[in-house]
Amino acid sequence: MFNAMSAPKAQNLTWHIGEVDREARAAAHGHRGAVLWFTGLSGSGKSTIGHRVERLLIERRAFAYVLDGDNVRHGLNSDLGFAAEDRIENIRRIGEVARLFADAGCLVLSAFISPYRKDRDRVRSLLPDGEFVEVFVDTPLEICEARDPKGLYKKARAGEISNFTGLDAPYEAPERPEVHLETESLSVDEAAAQVIRYLDEHDIIGAS
Amino acid sequence: MFNAMSAPKAQNLTWHIGEVDREARAAAHGHRGAVLWFTGLSGSGKSTIGHRVERLLIERRAFAYVLDGDNVRHGLNSDLGFAAEDRIENIRRIGEVARLFADAGCLVLSAFISPYRKDRDRVRSLLPDGEFVEVFVDTPLEICEARDPKGLYKKARAGEISNFTGLDAPYEAPERPEVHLETESLSVDEAAAQVIRYLDEHDIIGAS
Repeated sequence: MFNAMSAPKAQNLTWHIGEVDREARAAAHGHRGAVLWFTGLSGSGKSTIGHRVERLLIERRAFAYVLDGDNVRHGLNSDLGFAAEDRIENIRRIGEVARLFADAGCLVLSAFISPYRKDRDRVRSLLPDGEFVEVFVDTPLEICEARDPKGLYKKARAGEISNFTGLDAPYEAPERPEVHLETESLSVDEAAAQVIRYLDEHDIIGAS
Repeated sequence: MFNAMSAPKAQNLTWHIGEVDREARAAAHGHRGAVLWFTGLSGSGKSTIGHRVERLLIERRAFAYVLDGDNVRHGLNSDLGFAAEDRIENIRRIGEVARLFADAGCLVLSAFISPYRKDRDRVRSLLPDGEFVEVFVDTPLEICEARDPKGLYKKARAGEISNFTGLDAPYEAPERPEVHLETESLSVDEAAAQVIRYLDEHDIIGAS
């Protein structure tokens, strides 16, 4: 019975917390949890490639989910602007949420510019070894700017946006990313396949 | 090719966002996503029952995860204290994170006192109809206090903690919770089974 008369069972309140560990989850799901952290300039293709990888994973019945501006900026981080400290807090919260998803056994893909090495390494430090996969979407600035899917480069060049990454704010490229996507010579499908190959080769997902 | 010369493909950047919808996820995972929002006094058994439900779901190979003080207060919400506005922000962020998990197709269980009806209803309003399941862990104050697994009631009675829910701060019980667990007459397993039965009967999880 679940009442005050049964002291030993009441103590189970603390004993039983966390009944499912990471190994049990991985066994049930057929894959480990991990954070795939896509980083690159605005317009580089992070979100497009991330969503393609997500679809391929879901087709394999894996738990996969993309965190991006669409589902984070308007919800969890709707109280944050674009000042320097807000940008840091933005990435901090995304990192913490990504950690929760990975702990839940999910392959979570984040698609944010995340221009600073220090911020990305801080997220890496939150995760167990091997569960942070940095994916550098390496698309040259000229191509991103010519593409300009949201018209942001145009606005930045017109002086309507300041502190724009790649123009008047720095982008610190990863030095040793787990996956380096040189998108000039890759289709979206090829780029997504390269990410999946990494997950396969590192035993994050099982052979399909 | 993924470059500036292929304007139509560059436009795919926006077309392809969100390739996987909720239906496709549910089909792949064998269940829908939903938020199981456990609410009740400190020591009522929210976390214990929540973790038992999580284990039962994982055993059925579902994607399930408990959000509680252990994994949220020390990470995502480590910048928040216990002042009134911090408590509101605490529940707001948990609600937003729970929404992301449900969107990812997860059965996410949150185990926080969440004493205010308004705060809980705000989270409910974030979710599509039927995806917010309020679970009232209805354990009388006297039993919670006698149990006192973390020694918090003792500290509150000694005046070391103020604004303690149920003592000098209100607990607003749910009026029409989806699941009402009257724990005085239920074991942990029976309570967990009642939650699972609700999910089965409402087609959130498939028949096992």
